[in-house]
Amino acid sequence: MKVIFTFQPKEEFVNDLRNHFPGAEFSFLKKISNAEEALPDAEIIVTMGEDLTDRHIERARSLKWIMVTSAGLEKMPFEAIRKKDILVTNARGIHKVPMAEFTLGLMLQHAKQLGSVLKQEEEGVWSRRLPTSELYGASLLVLGAGAIGSEIARLAKAFNMKTAGVNSTGKMVEHFDQMFTLRTYKEYLPHADYLVAVLPSTDDTKYTLKTEHFDKMKDTAVFINIGRGDLVEESVLLEAVKTKKIGHIFLDVFEREPLPSAHPFWKEEGISVTPHLSSITKMYMPRALEIFKKNLKAYSNNRSEEMMNVIDTERGY
Amino acid sequence: MKVIFTFQPKEEFVNDLRNHFPGAEFSFLKKISNAEEALPDAEIIVTMGEDLTDRHIERARSLKWIMVTSAGLEKMPFEAIRKKDILVTNARGIHKVPMAEFTLGLMLQHAKQLGSVLKQEEEGVWSRRLPTSELYGASLLVLGAGAIGSEIARLAKAFNMKTAGVNSTGKMVEHFDQMFTLRTYKEYLPHADYLVAVLPSTDDTKYTLKTEHFDKMKDTAVFINIGRGDLVEESVLLEAVKTKKIGHIFLDVFEREPLPSAHPFWKEEGISVTPHLSSITKMYMPRALEIFKKNLKAYSNNRSEEMMNVIDTERGY
Repeated sequence: MKVIFTFQPKEEFVNDLRNHFPGAEFSFLKKISNAEEALPDAEIIVTMGEDLTDRHIERARSLKWIMVTSAGLEKMPFEAIRKKDILVTNARGIHKVPMAEFTLGLMLQHAKQLGSVLKQEEEGVWSRRLPTSELYGASLLVLGAGAIGSEIARLAKAFNMKTAGVNSTGKMVEHFDQMFTLRTYKEYLPHADYLVAVLPSTDDTKYTLKTEHFDKMKDTAVFINIGRGDLVEESVLLEAVKTKKIGHIFLDVFEREPLPSAHPFWKEEGISVTPHLSSITKMYMPRALEIFKKNLKAYSNNRSEEMMNVIDTERGY
Repeated sequence: MKVIFTFQPKEEFVNDLRNHFPGAEFSFLKKISNAEEALPDAEIIVTMGEDLTDRHIERARSLKWIMVTSAGLEKMPFEAIRKKDILVTNARGIHKVPMAEFTLGLMLQHAKQLGSVLKQEEEGVWSRRLPTSELYGASLLVLGAGAIGSEIARLAKAFNMKTAGVNSTGKMVEHFDQMFTLRTYKEYLPHADYLVAVLPSTDDTKYTLKTEHFDKMKDTAVFINIGRGDLVEESVLLEAVKTKKIGHIFLDVFEREPLPSAHPFWKEEGISVTPHLSSITKMYMPRALEIFKKNLKAYSNNRSEEMMNVIDTERGY
């Protein structure tokens, strides 16, 4: 059973894998371009995603399973994969802890005005006259009530917030007080103190958030995007803060990343730019490889029905 | 029933009180020095604290009850109060929500390196190489496991942290996994990722945190003081960060407030200064006056046994 990694995990993980699976032949190739020779014999490919093309799938004649150690599958060559009936699993679920913590961190940064506090400190200014608020009793609307959105809502409930969620069906999801669909959530916008977007980029979500939505929001509301940059046109965001339609915008995702240094978002007072940080954590690879190990155990025992996070290659998620 | 306020609440509260208690005669005097004439007839004094002296108690011949709309009672003239058997109530408990939110805000600011992110943004730098961490699985030690400490622990548990508390008896308190006393908590210091102090200033707590304690802590640990500034000598804190005994220190309280502008804390990289913000919230006065209203109702109905937050004037809390 030949397993190739198109990235280099830390030595402790490499050793851990070799100890746990002495029967497997692991090759750690650092990048896909190093894999040309190994591809035809590889039964399993472990990738961080975004490196596989149709040609690789074609060449990987023995390939049975692709483990993607991230959640983003937008660039996967699903058609080629589907044709050869290759299994795909990903690391779905491991993002929820860091992303929810990051989101609550931004919400508290805003509520407690910690950004202004830091500026005051730099200037040696002691001033308690800051427009601080509480999460307690405030309303949160989450666009994208999946595993991550539900974890954000769970923490928000711990802070005694009201929570509303948006998913494709409007079906109830744990930790939300009420649910909407992308067609119906507009009615909740006038109530939301925090609007958090965790949506993937799909035909349904691209540029779905428009000026008409910001028009409906409280002028004190906070918009946080940790999903995908193309949820909303950049001009819509700039207009929303310049015309004070909304209290503040936190953006962790952008249409072009890294955000170009001349981009107006950097200097805009009403917009905070964070460099796609929400899912970054030291726990990332340990958690992803934990899933891989569980799946590899099931796979080795011919119990692929026990594998976690199997992707529907037709739907792409 | 004459009620004097030594501060001026907002008009909505004034109207609300007059509507709810038409039989009471309220005087809103802005400060204690305006109260000289009214004092002898005042049955109830409502104060934000720190303004009453022995002389005022002496002069207030009809005084039966003092409502303090804060939690700090250090400057109350308890001996004079005790002699005249005057009831004292305070606003204990209303601090727990804002203070716990503020504390979690600082913890997340540290874990997600949001201070560094803000600096990067000012400089237009996109860099994801930040030493971010998670609250998940980290250990929190709270010095002062009262209402506020327990609320901090409750939120910490929502983040899946381990929680240990310190109180005078070591008796279990909700939301803590384990408890210590001021004599025994030292053994937990090597395990704590976050050490939060919410202790009042008493003979037992003054300068109780010493170099020997910082010596035992992780060099990555974070110390947050939202209690009282005299818990630890300033020189001990400066030495702890300068010698990298500890990862970071957040101070919201100081021996002298406002912190003097020439104070070394302002410029010290390893110390973040916040201007005694933790309990500030727009909800402060509404919550404090809610307690006052409940107590005034009980008092008016001669059911003082139903009053909340009655202070033991012997102990002073």
